[in-house]
Amino acid sequence: MSNVKIGLVGAGRMGSFHAETVAYKIPGAELAAIADPVPGAANKLAERLGCPKVYTNPEEMFADPDVDAVLIAAPARSHAKLVVAAAKEGKGVFCEKPMAVTLEEADEAIQAMRQAGVPLQVGFNRRFAAGFKEAHDDIKKGKIGTPQLMRSLTRDPGLGDPTPIPEWTIFLETLIHDFDTLLYLNPGAEPTDVYAVADALVRPDFKDKGLLDTAVVNIRFDNGAIATAEANFQAVYGYDVRGEVFGSAGMITAGDVRQTSMVRYTADGANSDTCRKDTELLHDAYVAEVTSFVECVRTGGTPYTTGEDAHRALAIALACIESVKKNAPVQVKGNTQLI
Amino acid sequence: MSNVKIGLVGAGRMGSFHAETVAYKIPGAELAAIADPVPGAANKLAERLGCPKVYTNPEEMFADPDVDAVLIAAPARSHAKLVVAAAKEGKGVFCEKPMAVTLEEADEAIQAMRQAGVPLQVGFNRRFAAGFKEAHDDIKKGKIGTPQLMRSLTRDPGLGDPTPIPEWTIFLETLIHDFDTLLYLNPGAEPTDVYAVADALVRPDFKDKGLLDTAVVNIRFDNGAIATAEANFQAVYGYDVRGEVFGSAGMITAGDVRQTSMVRYTADGANSDTCRKDTELLHDAYVAEVTSFVECVRTGGTPYTTGEDAHRALAIALACIESVKKNAPVQVKGNTQLI
Amino acid sequence: MSNVKIGLVGAGRMGSFHAETVAYKIPGAELAAIADPVPGAANKLAERLGCPKVYTNPEEMFADPDVDAVLIAAPARSHAKLVVAAAKEGKGVFCEKPMAVTLEEADEAIQAMRQAGVPLQVGFNRRFAAGFKEAHDDIKKGKIGTPQLMRSLTRDPGLGDPTPIPEWTIFLETLIHDFDTLLYLNPGAEPTDVYAVADALVRPDFKDKGLLDTAVVNIRFDNGAIATAEANFQAVYGYDVRGEVFGSAGMITAGDVRQTSMVRYTADGANSDTCRKDTELLHDAYVAEVTSFVECVRTGGTPYTTGEDAHRALAIALACIESVKKNAPVQVKGNTQLI
Amino acid sequence: MSNVKIGLVGAGRMGSFHAETVAYKIPGAELAAIADPVPGAANKLAERLGCPKVYTNPEEMFADPDVDAVLIAAPARSHAKLVVAAAKEGKGVFCEKPMAVTLEEADEAIQAMRQAGVPLQVGFNRRFAAGFKEAHDDIKKGKIGTPQLMRSLTRDPGLGDPTPIPEWTIFLETLIHDFDTLLYLNPGAEPTDVYAVADALVRPDFKDKGLLDTAVVNIRFDNGAIATAEANFQAVYGYDVRGEVFGSAGMITAGDVRQTSMVRYTADGANSDTCRKDTELLHDAYVAEVTSFVECVRTGGTPYTTGEDAHRALAIALACIESVKKNAPVQVKGNTQLI
Repeated sequence: MSNVKIGLVGAGRMGSFHAETVAYKIPGAELAAIADPVPGAANKLAERLGCPKVYTNPEEMFADPDVDAVLIAAPARSHAKLVVAAAKEGKGVFCEKPMAVTLEEADEAIQAMRQAGVPLQVGFNRRFAAGFKEAHDDIKKGKIGTPQLMRSLTRDPGLGDPTPIPEWTIFLETLIHDFDTLLYLNPGAEPTDVYAVADALVRPDFKDKGLLDTAVVNIRFDNGAIATAEANFQAVYGYDVRGEVFGSAGMITAGDVRQTSMVRYTADGANSDTCRKDTELLHDAYVAEVTSFVECVRTGGTPYTTGEDAHRALAIALACIESVKKNAPVQVKGNTQLI
Repeated sequence: MSNVKIGLVGAGRMGSFHAETVAYKIPGAELAAIADPVPGAANKLAERLGCPKVYTNPEEMFADPDVDAVLIAAPARSHAKLVVAAAKEGKGVFCEKPMAVTLEEADEAIQAMRQAGVPLQVGFNRRFAAGFKEAHDDIKKGKIGTPQLMRSLTRDPGLGDPTPIPEWTIFLETLIHDFDTLLYLNPGAEPTDVYAVADALVRPDFKDKGLLDTAVVNIRFDNGAIATAEANFQAVYGYDVRGEVFGSAGMITAGDVRQTSMVRYTADGANSDTCRKDTELLHDAYVAEVTSFVECVRTGGTPYTTGEDAHRALAIALACIESVKKNAPVQVKGNTQLI
Repeated sequence: MSNVKIGLVGAGRMGSFHAETVAYKIPGAELAAIADPVPGAANKLAERLGCPKVYTNPEEMFADPDVDAVLIAAPARSHAKLVVAAAKEGKGVFCEKPMAVTLEEADEAIQAMRQAGVPLQVGFNRRFAAGFKEAHDDIKKGKIGTPQLMRSLTRDPGLGDPTPIPEWTIFLETLIHDFDTLLYLNPGAEPTDVYAVADALVRPDFKDKGLLDTAVVNIRFDNGAIATAEANFQAVYGYDVRGEVFGSAGMITAGDVRQTSMVRYTADGANSDTCRKDTELLHDAYVAEVTSFVECVRTGGTPYTTGEDAHRALAIALACIESVKKNAPVQVKGNTQLI
Repeated sequence: MSNVKIGLVGAGRMGSFHAETVAYKIPGAELAAIADPVPGAANKLAERLGCPKVYTNPEEMFADPDVDAVLIAAPARSHAKLVVAAAKEGKGVFCEKPMAVTLEEADEAIQAMRQAGVPLQVGFNRRFAAGFKEAHDDIKKGKIGTPQLMRSLTRDPGLGDPTPIPEWTIFLETLIHDFDTLLYLNPGAEPTDVYAVADALVRPDFKDKGLLDTAVVNIRFDNGAIATAEANFQAVYGYDVRGEVFGSAGMITAGDVRQTSMVRYTADGANSDTCRKDTELLHDAYVAEVTSFVECVRTGGTPYTTGEDAHRALAIALACIESVKKNAPVQVKGNTQLI
């Protein structure tokens, strides 16, 4: 059995993390190439990880016969185009979330991949986090009955300079995780209506430049469930990701910001350290998702998180944007025939 | 120092619990009289607790000079009228929530009590629950900075026959606790806008009769905080009351459904028993609130939960009803000059 | 039904706490008299609690026909003698732990009370703490099978001036709680052997004056269970009382030093406040034990913690002292025919 | 930088787990050979993991120039001899605990490795478990002052057929982890005295064949700390490893049997799944220890857990055996000049 050779697009923070995972932690995978348009970025990472090839143009890498599949960790707005380009070369794709920022390009990407007949996986890492997966499995088995109230939240640990943050990022890049999580934890149900509010509470001075750093979303599903998703860009205590599903026969909660099992009791009370980064809190989930992708590439299996999942989460994000603009509840579009 | 003599209105479940508290658990209080229009109800409770007087007409009891102050635990829709009647006799009043179901009658009750110059306390027990009080105190001291995201929930343990449940109960009688809690945990802030969704998910067969057993409310405050309140009438695991406040400098959570410190580890995993009733989960809060009221009556002090608090929580509940009717966000009215 | 009239011996910290409980928190109980040889001590407490009578000589109070039963919270070494004196006057007795410091005086007290035919209860408050009681009930029902490994610990919050602490206090007054707890959580089993080590680690400068502020005890039971009891006089994080029983079919843990359900998440991590005093951590247990005693006096029922329980815990404490002296495991004596 | 080539001795459960770690999860490591005297055992594992060479005689593998370092996961009583043999070939050694079962062979192994001048690491995995490491670091920094009371426990999930279990296994192979943990969590202190009790409580029918499946050990240290170590071979709720250190300035606890962050609330209360296997509870620690070893082999650095650590833990285990035989406290020997 030969190794699955992975080509990485994007040598930034997340791309580098995935590259290390591929290089060192996955049975039967190898890091075959790195593409990054930033001069020197690919080289530097390739050298550190012993990766034999580098590119500045991702499309050239897609055409490289030494690459079996690609992992896209480039800026969000380039994702869909890259997926389509990789599809044309018949390469399996792991694409960081969001896979697309419009439903049209999402569908285009999905269709390109379908035609290519290779796996398309989207980086919804929470589906690979043990607590969330266990929650999903229990819910799917009906252990808490029919979901009635749901909650999912993301709190990033700190907001740096808000200048480069694209408009609507909180919905398209942050809450997209929560939208997918809610879909994951309410299996088979479809979202119908959304009401979203958002504000710049962390950096009110950037509000007139379009920053939204805090948001709360109300989502209704066709099985009756009413969900709340919330996000904030600056939790001083660390990276916080939690979920809760209350159903007709019980409740399930998942997620815990505490770093280890260690608890310290002093004159100040009982204290636990908290996780500061996503790659710390969700370390195992990040490794698991890429491991699972490599397995799909090898076997031709269907990824655990698909382009269709990306489409569905995006439909909610887009409805949020519309809702904020109108300050009114709106219907979720999407769920097209494609899906 | 002579005892504060308390007259109880309403010998039902909650009234009986408060009556026991007054009779046995409060230094310097005594249960002086019980009024209940249901034939025999007052007598039965009075006999059990050694209470010397009973009435079927509360107003007669209010006129009794052997009664210093009254505790109203009658059906919600009669509260405001009873408060006004007690005020006319100059009696201090502890009124179960909601104190009123319209802002007009709330204001009338507040004004009557002001004229009487005696304490009016409302049964917002969560303000007396140790975890919530500690949360409030920390927030007030600025320990988590300015609130940005908030959550409060109430889940009742079981829905019996829905027939006698008045319309809008979930907002006026259940979530009213959460609205007050959110005000309590966001000190000094005023609610501005509300969006509410509600449904009959526990008993969909009663939806066309007006039952709403599940609701989620989005509330915006003038300090930027965005809050979610949620309620459901049937949590199979027990009575569940929790709160969370996320601010610019940290987060605070309060509430825990687990019954005791005991944890059981067996072949089925780790297990804790959960509280099944409000009087179990919030036992100490119920005792503390009536103890505090008795102290106010004795000293003429201002209650920890006032008629004005009731007005403010009610304003949110009424905005919820309007929001559900319109399926749109609405402004919170109230906060009149009175308050 | 007339009130049970309680006479208190000892107006110190614990006596005052019990007195308030009797005066205000127990249906059908009243504080009828207080005896304390310290000039003015009884008067001061009596005045505060509206108690009509005071004595400097406890025996005179025992003879008072206005007193139905007595609560002994005097110094430990006087307990047994006081129990016998109360028995002679036919008064029911609630005696703080330890009821005696020799097996002979324990037996004398037990026999005196048997002859008097009135209830004798000992202040083993942990049997009334909800978590420990739930643990006992589960174990008794066999939910974790046969106990094999056990643990009980007591950590007092702070050691003041060690000068007045009598020799062997850590076994006779502190660990006596843990010995009783272990007996309670291993129902039906008898201790056979004990090995104890003890030291002055908090205040080594008092070691040569006989101070032992830290101790660990190994106890074997006739059903095979091996238990560890440990104590320390200075936990800077507060008052800490916990238990653990591991059996053939599972494990149970009880006790939690955290003060409320509130958790604070800041840049320093997740933090809970901790209980600082026994009357805070075990508040409800203290009230419950005296409430239960009053009920026994009224009904003539058997107390939940008896003189025989005191005898059995004392037998372990005395074995510990012998073990420390010999630095060797010793057999537990006691369990005489009396018991 | 060329890969560190690892040769494995012992293709059993633990050896296979380590082999997978080397093969797939460690940057710069490769599984170069497997030796196992059981016919076919090495072949089968080698085939699964793509390992190029197999041996039935470990010593032949030690002589193989294609092997840089070895990982010994053979039966405990063969460890020391294998370490010495590997040392003779100048191979770095990772040896599963216990490295030896007598102090003499421990010292021989240590000296052989010193002469070889290559790293010797011992499989005390708890030092690599995040919670325990964090605890050690805090204690070393003095955050809880001087340790006074300590606890460490191991509970294995299930006892199969006790027939092949060698005498004193509970001390030499199970509690050896706890002895090392206590040394790790009390940095700089030396054990002075030990008292141990042990019994066959899980399988009393095997007691006369020498089985001891339950043990409690009391250890005193030269800094005053009094520790309890306990073990049992059958915890029906899973694999349980915890530690607690109480010091003059606070307490630290580490270890948690719960599997994930997921909690399930149903009519039966609140429930968490528990870890069932050591490779589940301590998965990351197992990977971390071998990763750290590979790094030491590459750099010539000193391992985090050394032969000297093995010697010191063994000295406690041997004292336990003596204590059980004598039913008396005994002194800890060892800490020879070698160490």
